[in-house]
Amino acid sequence: MPYQFYYWPMIQGRGEVVRLALEEAGVDYVDVARLPSEQEDNRNAILEILQDSSQTRPPFAPPFLVDGDVTVAQAANILHYLAPKIGLAPASEADQVFAHQLQLTVTDLLMEVHDTHHPIASALYYEDQVEESKKRAANFIEHRIPKHMGYYEGILANNPTRSGWLIGEDLTYPDLSLFQIVEGLRYAFPNAFAKLDGNYPQMIALHDAVAARPNTAAYLASERRIPFNTMGVFRHYPELDS
Amino acid sequence: MPYQFYYWPMIQGRGEVVRLALEEAGVDYVDVARLPSEQEDNRNAILEILQDSSQTRPPFAPPFLVDGDVTVAQAANILHYLAPKIGLAPASEADQVFAHQLQLTVTDLLMEVHDTHHPIASALYYEDQVEESKKRAANFIEHRIPKHMGYYEGILANNPTRSGWLIGEDLTYPDLSLFQIVEGLRYAFPNAFAKLDGNYPQMIALHDAVAARPNTAAYLASERRIPFNTMGVFRHYPELDS
Repeated sequence: MPYQFYYWPMIQGRGEVVRLALEEAGVDYVDVARLPSEQEDNRNAILEILQDSSQTRPPFAPPFLVDGDVTVAQAANILHYLAPKIGLAPASEADQVFAHQLQLTVTDLLMEVHDTHHPIASALYYEDQVEESKKRAANFIEHRIPKHMGYYEGILANNPTRSGWLIGEDLTYPDLSLFQIVEGLRYAFPNAFAKLDGNYPQMIALHDAVAARPNTAAYLASERRIPFNTMGVFRHYPELDS
Repeated sequence: MPYQFYYWPMIQGRGEVVRLALEEAGVDYVDVARLPSEQEDNRNAILEILQDSSQTRPPFAPPFLVDGDVTVAQAANILHYLAPKIGLAPASEADQVFAHQLQLTVTDLLMEVHDTHHPIASALYYEDQVEESKKRAANFIEHRIPKHMGYYEGILANNPTRSGWLIGEDLTYPDLSLFQIVEGLRYAFPNAFAKLDGNYPQMIALHDAVAARPNTAAYLASERRIPFNTMGVFRHYPELDS
């Protein structure tokens, strides 16, 4: 039975790190809320699960993955569960622990990115928190992008195999998430990121290497890849891009 | 060899969910930055690791745990690694996946709590973001506390065993973290939480049951439990407690 993946049909959001893994692995999956038969928007499939108060294993929020009897929520948890089954996890326990640690750092970064345009509350419109967003985004660009990017750059530089990937000789799922981070920062903060990206040559090389892999390239060129927009985690607002 | 735990010596912070697990399990561990021989403050032990740019498996930030050759960072990842070894994880894979999912939701909540007093930037003083904090905290109290607390209350109510714990018949590590959430919210938002806690009787019962366990009770009464203060994740500022 194919994996059933549940995430909002109109954004990349927190679900995109999972979509990238499913696509790179080339496995059979259903993006439930985007079924063509539902005119590409079947949000009710998500809401029915979120609003079912009788569940013993409810997800707090999408994304979540259904694999037979198992439902797994939280993007990093999904990847930790899924990657060994689809050939995207490293082999040893120590490496798997490190891969998950990196993915949790990506999770933190995505929340920081989200809060550049929603520093006061997710439930409020961006337009109601623009001034606070300007302050938060300026700090994010000055301090947080270099801290995160420098961290990953150091790991790539110190990989004893010099493979260009984060762990060992082969691509693993956090590499796909770093592609997404570079792609997202470029979209959201084109001016700021253009001034920074020369400091992170291995991150840029990793991004380019992921984009060139056949399965991922086919995905990125397809309609399955939802374009960036101002509803997702990465948003481009010129006033936040100093 | 005892586990070596690294976290800031002056706060509970993100490390406390791990300290609670180590203490409840009664295992041998060293809280490295709080060694008595270092006059209870050995922050340099943390900084030396964070600043060592030659590492192949660096932590992004504390907390991290050293277990022989393995270093594990990110609190939820530490617990996922540690709990099966110290008797605090559920038995089946599906239950372990769900325990970790809950712990990641706790991680998200702790970041939301932190951002009630640091909505603009962690690197700035609270005093430089008080007005923004008031807005964020008001929204957090009105919308986010009920959403998170209601989620856990529903899981406790739907546990088929009616054990009072989140998963199955026995305490597992996310139960300890829910204790910490109730304890922290009571400290940080005493007025607001007093108006809400009657809605979550099972959460309060869980909190009390954790506090009464002999190992945890001994820990809470000891000097090893750092008091809440206005340096950690949970902070009491009267102006944020509507």
